[in-house]
Order: sequence, then C-alpha cells, then structure tokens
Amino acid sequence: MQRLYFLTLILIWLAKPAFSQQAVVDAIFSNALKSDVAYEQLRILCTTTEGRIAGSPQAAAAVEYTKQLMEQMDLDSVYLQKVMVPNWKRGEPEQARLISRVLGNQELSVTALGLSVGTGPQGLIAPVLEVQSLEELEQLGEAAVKGKIVFFNRAVNQDHYNTFQGYSGAVDQRVMGPLTAARLGAVAALVRSVTTASHDYPHTGVTRFDADGRNIPALAVSPKGADLLSQALKTDPDLSLYLRNTSHQLPDAVSYNVIGEIRGTDFPDQIITVGGHIDAWDNSQGAHDNGGGCVQSIDMLRIFRELNIQDEEIRQTGGNTYADSANAASEKHYFALESDRGVFTPRGFSIDAEGEQLEALQALKPYFEAYGMHEFVKGGSGVDIRPLKNYYNMAQAGLVTDSQRYFDLHHAASDTFEKINRRELNLGTAAMAAFIYLIDHLDTLGEE
Amino acid sequence: MQRLYFLTLILIWLAKPAFSQQAVVDAIFSNALKSDVAYEQLRILCTTTEGRIAGSPQAAAAVEYTKQLMEQMDLDSVYLQKVMVPNWKRGEPEQARLISRVLGNQELSVTALGLSVGTGPQGLIAPVLEVQSLEELEQLGEAAVKGKIVFFNRAVNQDHYNTFQGYSGAVDQRVMGPLTAARLGAVAALVRSVTTASHDYPHTGVTRFDADGRNIPALAVSPKGADLLSQALKTDPDLSLYLRNTSHQLPDAVSYNVIGEIRGTDFPDQIITVGGHIDAWDNSQGAHDNGGGCVQSIDMLRIFRELNIQDEEIRQTGGNTYADSANAASEKHYFALESDRGVFTPRGFSIDAEGEQLEALQALKPYFEAYGMHEFVKGGSGVDIRPLKNYYNMAQAGLVTDSQRYFDLHHAASDTFEKINRRELNLGTAAMAAFIYLIDHLDTLGEE
Repeated sequence: MQRLYFLTLILIWLAKPAFSQQAVVDAIFSNALKSDVAYEQLRILCTTTEGRIAGSPQAAAAVEYTKQLMEQMDLDSVYLQKVMVPNWKRGEPEQARLISRVLGNQELSVTALGLSVGTGPQGLIAPVLEVQSLEELEQLGEAAVKGKIVFFNRAVNQDHYNTFQGYSGAVDQRVMGPLTAARLGAVAALVRSVTTASHDYPHTGVTRFDADGRNIPALAVSPKGADLLSQALKTDPDLSLYLRNTSHQLPDAVSYNVIGEIRGTDFPDQIITVGGHIDAWDNSQGAHDNGGGCVQSIDMLRIFRELNIQDEEIRQTGGNTYADSANAASEKHYFALESDRGVFTPRGFSIDAEGEQLEALQALKPYFEAYGMHEFVKGGSGVDIRPLKNYYNMAQAGLVTDSQRYFDLHHAASDTFEKINRRELNLGTAAMAAFIYLIDHLDTLGEE
Repeated sequence: MQRLYFLTLILIWLAKPAFSQQAVVDAIFSNALKSDVAYEQLRILCTTTEGRIAGSPQAAAAVEYTKQLMEQMDLDSVYLQKVMVPNWKRGEPEQARLISRVLGNQELSVTALGLSVGTGPQGLIAPVLEVQSLEELEQLGEAAVKGKIVFFNRAVNQDHYNTFQGYSGAVDQRVMGPLTAARLGAVAALVRSVTTASHDYPHTGVTRFDADGRNIPALAVSPKGADLLSQALKTDPDLSLYLRNTSHQLPDAVSYNVIGEIRGTDFPDQIITVGGHIDAWDNSQGAHDNGGGCVQSIDMLRIFRELNIQDEEIRQTGGNTYADSANAASEKHYFALESDRGVFTPRGFSIDAEGEQLEALQALKPYFEAYGMHEFVKGGSGVDIRPLKNYYNMAQAGLVTDSQRYFDLHHAASDTFEKINRRELNLGTAAMAAFIYLIDHLDTLGEE
C-alpha cells in the first residue's frame, strides 16, 4: 500500500508439463509449507535493512541483498534497472505536546507523514480544531481554520469484514487532509492514524500537497493519542498543541529495480510479471509491508526449480520505470501478479480483468479451495504493477490475504519480523506460484 | 484441545423474530466487530488468572471472574455446578542437561507433561535412545530400552494445510509415548514438543499412564532443544541426559462449572449449549487455549441483549459432569457448539451430525460466505461438549478457525494475551452467535 517507486518484480513464463495440474498445485503447497528459506530471508531483510525508505542506504542494502539472492538461483539473467526515487528524510524524532491550563501538559505519540515539510527547529504552537471529515473542514471555512492545527479524528470504521474497506473510508484524511487544511490557512495538520488498532503507535503514510501551494507540517498521531486529545478538547477547547518536526525533502535519488529473468522456450516473447515493492517506511522493518511480498516472489523461483518445473521466464523490476521500459522494448506482457496486502493466510485473488479473462482466472478457484482460498473476485491488483496497464491490454491480480491484522501494523513501528508466521508466509508463496503455474497452462486468457 | 474437566458452557434458546435472517446475521457481525468488551475481559482473564490449571487458586479466580461477568448480564440464573478435577502440581522449574565428554554440557528447555510423576529431588541421569515413532520403539524392544531415557523426536508434518492434521499425526508420541516407554523399562521419556514452531518454548499436554503400571517422568523438550539433542546424539551416541522434575499428583480437587441460563418462552424445554473449557495449562496465560473461547461464549449473550434478540435460554457449565447432570435432570438437548481451536479468523464449522441434521447445518453456509467462512464440513465438535452425545441424539459443532498459528502457542508459555487480535476474537463470537441464531430459527434440525 506504499506508493513510493522502488520495487521488486518477477516475470515468469512456464512451459507445459505432462502431469495432473492439481498434483502440481499440491506439490507446490507441500514444498512451500515445509520450507524455512523465505522465512530466513525475510528475517535477514527485516533486521539488516530496517527503515529502508526509498533513497536511504538501507534501501540500497535491500537492493543488493535481493540481487544476491537471485544471483544464487541460477537464473538466465539478474540485473538492476535504474529508477529515480523521492528522497524524503525524517529528521529528528517528532514531538507533540498538548498544553492546557486546565489539564496540564501531555506528550502525544506522533510521526511525520511521508513528504511532510518540517516545522522548523523551534517547532510551532497553535490552537486545535478537531474535525471528522474533509467536508466538515470545508464547511467550517477559512475563518475557523486560519492559524489552527487541524486535527482529523475520524476513526477507521470497523464494521467491515475486510479491513481494506475501513481503511479506504478513512485514508482520505491522511492523503488529502493536510492539503485541504493548508488551503484554508491552517498552520499544521494532525491526522488520526489510519489503523484498526487502539495502541500508542502512530502510523505514517503518504500525504499530498499542491505543487505550487503552501505546504504545512503534517503528522499522524497514535489512536491512543488521538483519543486523549479529543477528550482533552472536550474539557478544554482552548488548549494548544506544540508540534516539532524536522523532516525535509532532498533532490530525487538513484535507486534500482532488481530484475531476474528466466527465458522461456515455448513462448519466450510472452512475459508474466510477479513482484512487489521492497522499500518500506523508515519507521519500521517493513515485514508485512512489503518485505514479505518480495521474498515470496523470489521464493516462487526456488519452488519452481526444486519441483523441476522448467522453462520459466522471470524478471524482477518495478513500477512506472519498469512499465515505461517494457513498452520501449516492445515486450509482450501477458499477466502480472502482486503481493502487497501483508503476510497473512491467503484467501484468494483480486482480479483486475474483464470478460473472458476474468472468467478464465475465476475458473481456477477449484484448485485452491482445499487451501482455504475462496475469494476470486473482480477488483484491483496492486499499485506497483498497475502502470503496466498503461501499455498492455493485460490481466492483473493481487494476492488477497486475511485482512484482520494488517492495519494494526501497516506503516507503523509494529510492522516487525516477529509478526510474521512462517506458514502464512509460505502459503502466500505457494498460492502465487500455483496461480502462475495454472495461468501459464491455460491455452489462452481470452479477450477482455 | 485440553482434556481437563473444568469448563464453561452456555446454553441458548432463542425465539423467532420477524425480520430478514441475513440482516440479523449482519447486525451480529457489525456489533461484534466494533466491540472492545470481550477483548478487555480476555485481557483481565489472561493477566489475573495466568496458569489457571484445574485445581489451582487461579482456576478458582477464573470461575469467580466468569461468574461475575454473567451476574452482571441480567440472565435468568447464574450458578455453579460442582466438579471434581485432577489436581496435578508442576513443582519446581524442570531441568534437562545434556552431558557429553565430546560436546560438553548443554541445558535444554523442557516442561513436564501433564500428570507426569517426578524424578525425585535429586533428578536422574541416563543414556538416551532416540526414536521416531511408537512402532520403532516397540520393535527395538525391552533390551534396547531398559534403563534409557526414550526421546521421541518425530516432528509435526508441516505438509498439511490444516495444522490439526499435522498435530494429530504427531501427538501419539506425547499421549502414548511415555506409557509405551515405561512398559519397556525406560527410566524417563522426553517428547519433542508437538508444535509447528521451531522456537525454544516447550509445549506441555496430557500424557497417559497405566493405572496399575510403572509410571516414569515424562517431559516435553522445545523443538530447538530437540534438534540440538538429536544432532548431539549423532556426534556422541554415548551422551547422557540429566532430568529433574518435581511435579506430583494431589487428591482430586473441587472446582465448578459456571452456568448461566436464560429461559426461552417458545420452547423452554429445548436447550442449545455453547461454551468451552476455561482452565489452561499452568505454564501459560491460556489466551488462545481457551480463555478466548470462554469470553466469546459470554460475549454472545451481550450481543443478543444489545440487538434485542429476546428469549434466550442460556447456561454455562461443562463436560462430563454437565452431561451426567443434564441426563439426570431429563433435559432436552437440541444442539451444542464449542470454541476451542484458538482465537483466529473463523473459517467455518466442523459439524458432528449425520443425514438431514448435517444437511440442515451445512445449508446455513450462504449466510457466512461474506465473512470468509466456507468450511461447513462433517467432523468433530469439541472435547468438552462431546459427553452430551452419550445421552442425546443431538447435533454438535465446533467453530473452525484459521489454523496456521495455533500450534505455535498451544500448551506453551507463548500463549499470551498479546497474541490475541481483537477483530479475530470478535469475528469468532459473531460467527457463533449467528450460527446459534440461525439454528434456532430452523423449523427442525431433522433426523440423523
């Protein structure tokens, strides 16, 4: 769910084997469930490249590590593709202090939102205006907002079974809130963390700004801190908030997509892409988001090798640069798959396709039902493979995982390796490997 | 999965409402997903009654706490039902030390198996015989076994998607291994923890003994310790193991089933039972096994109350005593439901019924598919409601949860409250509440 631009992708082309497809699917799951390989790779990635935000030395180390992993795999080629990435630095630990004559002072747990400007080293103090929505803020208008810190406090709606629905219903405050507040004259924005948890971790994430407008410091406050502040405002509406944030933007930096290829023999000109971003927010190990998706993508290749499924064509690369480059090279992209919803038990695939393509992919469901995967639904794929859609009339899919825990740790310091379960990681790998294997053996994906 | 005899059950009878059943199911899930109530109750249960093994003061405190919770709920009656429970005490922390002239000494992480006898305060030292199965041990025979510590080292087979299958395939070593080793003259038994994890926690559990046979100390070793010992035996087959365990058996103790009732109006003589055991292994907080199942059973009542679903008949009680007593009182038991597979996202129900009853219950699946529940399969229900089957021709079911993580913490010190996710807990409650609601509104469960 992170929208920075460095990622890992794999492209695969498989030739036809002669044995039962369900037997191959079962062998893939069995191999994955017994393996420690990806789990150990993810442990190393999380603990040695913690905070690997795009442009950081840790991100460069993650590029090097994943490249090394692939170089050890006897692929046809492994190479790096240059990408320019934003280069935002957090600076010193952020501070937020509620200042009230009635209630005394109280520290709140906060984090700068990605791409936020700083407050200056002295910080800023201002009264607080709490709102529940962008619409409420717009209605209050400039007179009410000017000079204030706008506090967006609408919590994630927990009604929905799928937490992505709750997340989508609240994330506008983080993405558009600071921008809207800045237009109306606010001095800063504080956004309730977009999370299903009620803990004291703040959750970061990208916020947008007008390219030519006034930028203001934009921070997220932990859900516990948000509750405390909201309660305090009821008692003392005249309280002030002190905020200090020294994050700042540097010129775009060079990073790399890591690309691994295995050339197919039967249809070497048709490419299947698999992968996900390897960068992570600088406040976390990025275990679920998205180190897990990367090692899963790589571990698929190990499984194909070990099961002697021949003739894969594989690449690892990513995002806009990858799509632009693929188009320039006149590659034929057939299908793309992304894992970026956390390392939890797989439940199915979200399929971004129409008509016959959608039907053909949904028809693969019976192979997966014994593995608890029943959700083969039309929906979005993943933000890092979507650019390929600009150039190709291709089907895409995203691995759907059990969503209950994801937004407890998404973009927060709680996203650590210890939250990863080996079996859940490997089931995701197996699901992706089996899906790619089966798609490769369809006669055609049909027309949209 | 714990087989001690103190538990919590709830019995429910609901009358007919006039509105759409899917709307009621949806309202139940929505209510549950927003609630903090059960999560906070479980926090208190786990942190104030840690180690609540049957017969312990902590178990008595857990009885009192759950009784108080129900007394605050405006039920028709809340009472205790006396149960005699085994009263086994662990004693001092167990010790295991590998002693090798070649490799030096090394401590192993061990725990006494439930009902194990002690080694005496001085401990014991003996050579080690590693086996992979009961069959291998039997074939080796008394000459090879006599005077040895038998080390059962077959790991859980991780191939299976459902971890209960892997568990079932390995647990014979723990349940029957020490007994078999004792018959062949072993001085002690050490069993590889029956777990999907590879950590250094040992996992306890019940072991069986001949009532009139020779008992030997029986301990479980952590998976990490088992790997270490097995590797050491390859290098130095003549190594010895020092074991010390001071657990011992006291006379059976008095405990109580906690019973809550709401009398139905339409069919007050027909009873639906819901619940699970509240005791836990003394080495853990018993969060997943099975504090979660207990607070879920209680929280169902809160949901029925808040949604104004009237006329429930509810009881809380348990196990063999409960079944015997129910039979003596000529109660009519209609259906029983248990939650004892950990607090994870619900996947369906395991239904212990035949013929029309099975079909009627499986036909409820469409109500649950939007909540990711697709497994409505014939299978076992739960060990604590099964005794009712001795007296009643009744259908039973167990809540099926995502099994990937359960045996990482089952019967181990890692089974703590912090491993509980609020949404997964509440989804389980909602699934149980909705299932009971729907069963209550079937005209008949039909014939077996």
